[in-house]
Amino acid sequence: MDFDLDMSADVLRRTPATLHTLLGGLAEPWIRGVEGPETFSPFDVVGHLIDGEETDWIPRARIILARDPTVPFEPYDRFRHRARNANRSMESLLLEFAKLRAESLEVLRAWRLAPSDLDLPGTHPALGPVTLRQLLAAWVAHDLGHVAQVVRVMAKQYYDAAGPWVPFLPVLTDHQVPRS
Amino acid sequence: MDFDLDMSADVLRRTPATLHTLLGGLAEPWIRGVEGPETFSPFDVVGHLIDGEETDWIPRARIILARDPTVPFEPYDRFRHRARNANRSMESLLLEFAKLRAESLEVLRAWRLAPSDLDLPGTHPALGPVTLRQLLAAWVAHDLGHVAQVVRVMAKQYYDAAGPWVPFLPVLTDHQVPRS
Repeated sequence: MDFDLDMSADVLRRTPATLHTLLGGLAEPWIRGVEGPETFSPFDVVGHLIDGEETDWIPRARIILARDPTVPFEPYDRFRHRARNANRSMESLLLEFAKLRAESLEVLRAWRLAPSDLDLPGTHPALGPVTLRQLLAAWVAHDLGHVAQVVRVMAKQYYDAAGPWVPFLPVLTDHQVPRS
Repeated sequence: MDFDLDMSADVLRRTPATLHTLLGGLAEPWIRGVEGPETFSPFDVVGHLIDGEETDWIPRARIILARDPTVPFEPYDRFRHRARNANRSMESLLLEFAKLRAESLEVLRAWRLAPSDLDLPGTHPALGPVTLRQLLAAWVAHDLGHVAQVVRVMAKQYYDAAGPWVPFLPVLTDHQVPRS
C-alpha cells in the first residue's frame, strides 16, 4: 500500500479512542501486567505514546520542514515516561494522550503538505537518511504496533489460565524474547 | 494473573467497541489488506469473531454446563466466515458482532456461575480435557489476539512506506510465517 496522508491521519486520529476503549476504567492487573523484565505494561505504552507526541513525531517533522538535512533529529528516550508518569493514573494519561494527539494532527493538517513536501529529507541519528513520508508512515506503524503490544501483554496475563489452549493462541507465545 | 469472571467479562465487553473504533468507516485498503497468503484481513477477523459467538465459546460452555464430559465440543471451522460474509460490509459485520457479543455476555451473566462451576470439565476435540474456566480464559485471550492481529496486519500495509524504520518497528516483522 502506498503512503497516503489522509489515510494515515485517519488511523492516527483513532488511537486515543482505541486505547480509551481498551483501557479506560480497566482493573489494575490488566493495566500493569508485563510480558517480561524491562518490557512495557499497557500503562507504560500510553506513556511512551505521550513521549512520542512531545519529543518524536511532530518535533522531527518540524526539523525536516526547516529544510536543513544536516541537522539530525534529537535521539529519542524510550524510558522518559517512567519518571514522568510515576504518580499518574491511567485515566489521566489517556486524556493527556488524546489532547496531545489532537494537537499533533491539527499541526499536521495546518502544514497542508504537498506530495513534494513528503520527499523532504531528514537525518535520523541511528538510521541515517530518511524522508518526511517515511517518518509519517513510521508514526502510523508505531501506533499500531503499540496497540498490538497492549492487547498482547493483556492476553499473556491469561497464559496460565488458558491452559491447554495455549498452542491454539499464538498471541500467548509471541515475543517470548521481547523485541519492543 | 488468576482467572476472574468479572474481569474477563469486562474485556470481552469492550472488543466490539475497540474494533468499531479501529475499523468503522476506515478505507478499504486498511480493511482488506493481509500479511500473507491464506491469512486474515481485518474484515476476515471480524467475521471469525462472529463465528466464535455463533459456534464456539457460548455453545461450548453450554456443552460443559450440560455436565456430560464424554460429549466433545463440535470442531470449529476457522473459515466459515469466508462464504458467510462474501457480500457483507465491514460496518454490518461490526454491528452484528456487537449484537452477538452483547447476547453472549447476557447469557454468561444469567448463568451466575459459581467458582465450582468454573471447574466443570469438557472435552475439546483436539486438545482433550479442559475446564470451563480455561474455555473462558481462552475466549478472552482469543479476542485480544485477534485485535493484535488486526492492528499488526494494518501496520504491515506500511512496511514499504516506513522504509528505514522497519528495524525499529517489530510489528512489521512479526509473524513472517503466519501463525494465526
